Amino acid sequence: MNKTISVNDILQDLESHIENLNYGESPKELYEPISYIMSLGGKRIRPLLTLLSYSLFKNDYRQALSPAAAVEVFHNFTLMHDDIMDDAPLRRGKATVHEKWNPNTAILSGDVMLVRAYDLLVDIDPVLLPKCIRLFNRTAAEVCEGQQHDMNFESMDEVEEDTYINMIRLKTAVLLGFALELGAILAGRDEKEAKLLYDFGVNIGIGFQLKDDLLDVYADKAKFGKQVGGDIIANKKTFLLIKAKELASGAIKEDLERWIASKDFDKEEKVKAVTAIYDKLHIKTLTEKKMQEYFDLGFSQFEKLEVSNQDTLEVLRQLTKDLINREK
Amino acid sequence: MNKTISVNDILQDLESHIENLNYGESPKELYEPISYIMSLGGKRIRPLLTLLSYSLFKNDYRQALSPAAAVEVFHNFTLMHDDIMDDAPLRRGKATVHEKWNPNTAILSGDVMLVRAYDLLVDIDPVLLPKCIRLFNRTAAEVCEGQQHDMNFESMDEVEEDTYINMIRLKTAVLLGFALELGAILAGRDEKEAKLLYDFGVNIGIGFQLKDDLLDVYADKAKFGKQVGGDIIANKKTFLLIKAKELASGAIKEDLERWIASKDFDKEEKVKAVTAIYDKLHIKTLTEKKMQEYFDLGFSQFEKLEVSNQDTLEVLRQLTKDLINREK
Repeated sequence: MNKTISVNDILQDLESHIENLNYGESPKELYEPISYIMSLGGKRIRPLLTLLSYSLFKNDYRQALSPAAAVEVFHNFTLMHDDIMDDAPLRRGKATVHEKWNPNTAILSGDVMLVRAYDLLVDIDPVLLPKCIRLFNRTAAEVCEGQQHDMNFESMDEVEEDTYINMIRLKTAVLLGFALELGAILAGRDEKEAKLLYDFGVNIGIGFQLKDDLLDVYADKAKFGKQVGGDIIANKKTFLLIKAKELASGAIKEDLERWIASKDFDKEEKVKAVTAIYDKLHIKTLTEKKMQEYFDLGFSQFEKLEVSNQDTLEVLRQLTKDLINREK
Repeated sequence: MNKTISVNDILQDLESHIENLNYGESPKELYEPISYIMSLGGKRIRPLLTLLSYSLFKNDYRQALSPAAAVEVFHNFTLMHDDIMDDAPLRRGKATVHEKWNPNTAILSGDVMLVRAYDLLVDIDPVLLPKCIRLFNRTAAEVCEGQQHDMNFESMDEVEEDTYINMIRLKTAVLLGFALELGAILAGRDEKEAKLLYDFGVNIGIGFQLKDDLLDVYADKAKFGKQVGGDIIANKKTFLLIKAKELASGAIKEDLERWIASKDFDKEEKVKAVTAIYDKLHIKTLTEKKMQEYFDLGFSQFEKLEVSNQDTLEVLRQLTKDLINREK
């Protein structure tokens, strides 16, 4: 009866739940962009984490599909607004909402999308609702704080390593933590296990972002699916660049600063040159070391979990490892 | 002991409650715009309505200060985002947030402001919370729908009277209805009285917007405090213009269409000419009649209210009449 839970089964249920969400009808300019961005896909990691976390303790994960979808709707709301702020033309290979419609529509559709995320939370057991909304609010505000820090970085000369880690914690990691915590709370575990899952999610989330930073430079071109070196071309203050600026001296420092200041350059040449600087400074190893610290910390919390369904624990462990080892 | 409630006392308590709200500290680019827009003042009508509505049934309105503030924070969130969309340079005579900072900051500060509105609701009695959040969500989505309809109107040749009334119902009236309904629910009246107060608020709210449309053209310049005829200059599809386009024929129609099409005109001359067209078509009387219909409908619902505090009912009646008779 209690057969091992399958990620694919959960994802199928989740996808059909998301497909059937009704955000509203009229005016269509307001609601079509929501269906559009939600249909672009993505790995649905966050709601999957909520459902797996819930399944550590209870067997009827379908009960948690709406709150899990709330996390995904919220995530896509942040993407819709971030894409305006970053002036991004593409999202998952398709036109962004502000490009396909216009920035005003992307602002307003995003706003109503955030409201709809709360709508998906409101059917939670009233006994658990205040706590869930408080934690969701805290997380949502932190994600906004992270985005503002990231925007601030663009006009800053120097960003410290700790400041950067705090930014990615806020911008991306806390939502993974919340997704996991929410599952435990919905399953009636609102103390020790919820906190361990939150911390696990945050630390793993920081590791994932460091992995993203690494892949931008060191991904296998054939497997990566997007341009290698995009962050280098844009002078994006990733962990790699921050570390390189911290460690570079003498001729290497001058070389790095020249590439950063250069307005007119061959993209491929810049990627090659900055990557060579990173190599000289052993940035790859340093980043991998830092990333591994966060993965190790996350797993040390994971190992402390006491759950009803050991099989699900193994599924969650394997999913996390697959994400850690991804090559795109 | 049960002395008559005073609007000024409530407003003072409300203002100091709002002044003491803590939206967050860091990064300051995210949170300063919230304090800024909230400090620009305004009449605080919406939270005042919540507190008066609550006071119809109970005497400790301070219990409702946080949810009342939520309504005001939500309202100012919509102003912050609407100002970006409308490219408005000024709000209450001061620079708008996207002008004083930049559009990205106004988007993101607005987002976190919406989250903070939910934070101010979450301390509501857990028994009432799901209902309050559901109604708030519905209202918030409707306000976004109204704004989208209003933006759609800009590129439409013709807007029907009913379509226009529906837009102002969504964009401005339902929030007044919700503010009143919320007070009744918080005071433990969640059926008949809450519904009557909601309907009263919506109908009065539609009347207020028609009054706004009227004042733009027919206000006493000395009392109005802003440019008379701003809507005429901008060809804004107000009730007056919609009605004039519906009724004009022959030479008057040609004249009106010429002024609407004109790109290069003397502002004062256009205001004078279009006002003369309105006068010929008796638009002022027609608008006043329509406005009065909504006020009458609202008051017919108001008269059906059965409340504990008759004194407060009179205060609410008088406040509404003062708003109806305002000249700016």
